[in-house]
Amino acid sequence: MKIYGDIQSGNCYKIKLLVELLGLSYEWIPVNILADETQTADFLAKNPNGKVPVLELDDGRCLSESNAILNYLAEGTLYLPDDSFARAKVLEWQFFEQYSHEPFIAVARFINKYLGMPEDRKADFESKQAGGHKALQVMERQLSKTDFLVGDRMTTADITLYGYTHVADEGGFDLAQYPAIEAWIKRIQQLPGYVGMS
Amino acid sequence: MKIYGDIQSGNCYKIKLLVELLGLSYEWIPVNILADETQTADFLAKNPNGKVPVLELDDGRCLSESNAILNYLAEGTLYLPDDSFARAKVLEWQFFEQYSHEPFIAVARFINKYLGMPEDRKADFESKQAGGHKALQVMERQLSKTDFLVGDRMTTADITLYGYTHVADEGGFDLAQYPAIEAWIKRIQQLPGYVGMS
Repeated sequence: MKIYGDIQSGNCYKIKLLVELLGLSYEWIPVNILADETQTADFLAKNPNGKVPVLELDDGRCLSESNAILNYLAEGTLYLPDDSFARAKVLEWQFFEQYSHEPFIAVARFINKYLGMPEDRKADFESKQAGGHKALQVMERQLSKTDFLVGDRMTTADITLYGYTHVADEGGFDLAQYPAIEAWIKRIQQLPGYVGMS
Repeated sequence: MKIYGDIQSGNCYKIKLLVELLGLSYEWIPVNILADETQTADFLAKNPNGKVPVLELDDGRCLSESNAILNYLAEGTLYLPDDSFARAKVLEWQFFEQYSHEPFIAVARFINKYLGMPEDRKADFESKQAGGHKALQVMERQLSKTDFLVGDRMTTADITLYGYTHVADEGGFDLAQYPAIEAWIKRIQQLPGYVGMS
């Protein structure tokens, strides 16, 4: 299988982290977002929405949306619980991430790290801070009670949220005020097969 | 089970539509978003993120995020395919909706319909139009090829996207330029058990 992605994107890195933890073999195809490589006809044939990551199976079928890819790859592994309510909780965290976490933390990081904080985006950057901290507070509340987001085992929900949370400082978010999140980050980084974002 | 929601919210209406199509019994608990009823201590105990809809099971366990609730309730029914790739495609569309569709179409509708288009939100409303049309184009492309978003059967992906698409005109989006979407809306409205947003 092939994974089309930009490794500096947390949404792409999530997929790399899972496949490395699972020990799956794959080919990583680098895609440069800033050079509009997601807008070519070839790429749009793989994902009409023009975004990375994209998973391409050996038979040519393609799947997009990072969290859909994660759960597809994790099916049948310990990263996706069998119990239907626990699986629903995994999805709850993943939708939370795409709506209430990523649009603040990842976008603030994008403005700072990718775009180099241009003057005309500073207000936009600042406007992301309150929402980002609100999302971190929701995570902190859960991680103060359980080792991982859905109970005591790591699931794809943790990989989803880890993607941008562990680099939240690059978006201006100081994690020192979230001790349970910091402990959870260390827990994930100690897993066999763990790879960083590089 | 209880469903906490505001029926004018597409995210809440999705749940009502599915439970009616499935013929499940439920109690609907109205929650007024504009009166901050999602921010009370009681409500935050059900969903720390302070958003509707919330599903409360008879044993008291709660689930939030509209699309997580849909898939939980649809498990084992025809609305959620057994095939793992088809299920992944359902999720792909649902994450697409929360990231690339709802933040444009639902937010434009919110500014217009809930807030009454205040002067200081007009620029925000206008800024949502291009992204909304891009999302509608992605849907139109798929619905020109298949009757429903994931093949020839209706799935929760259709319920997810139907939520705000069928009232997109309230956000300033003219659906007349999307004939495949209009045909799909009619297809859904003819289903036995269909209920509208009211």
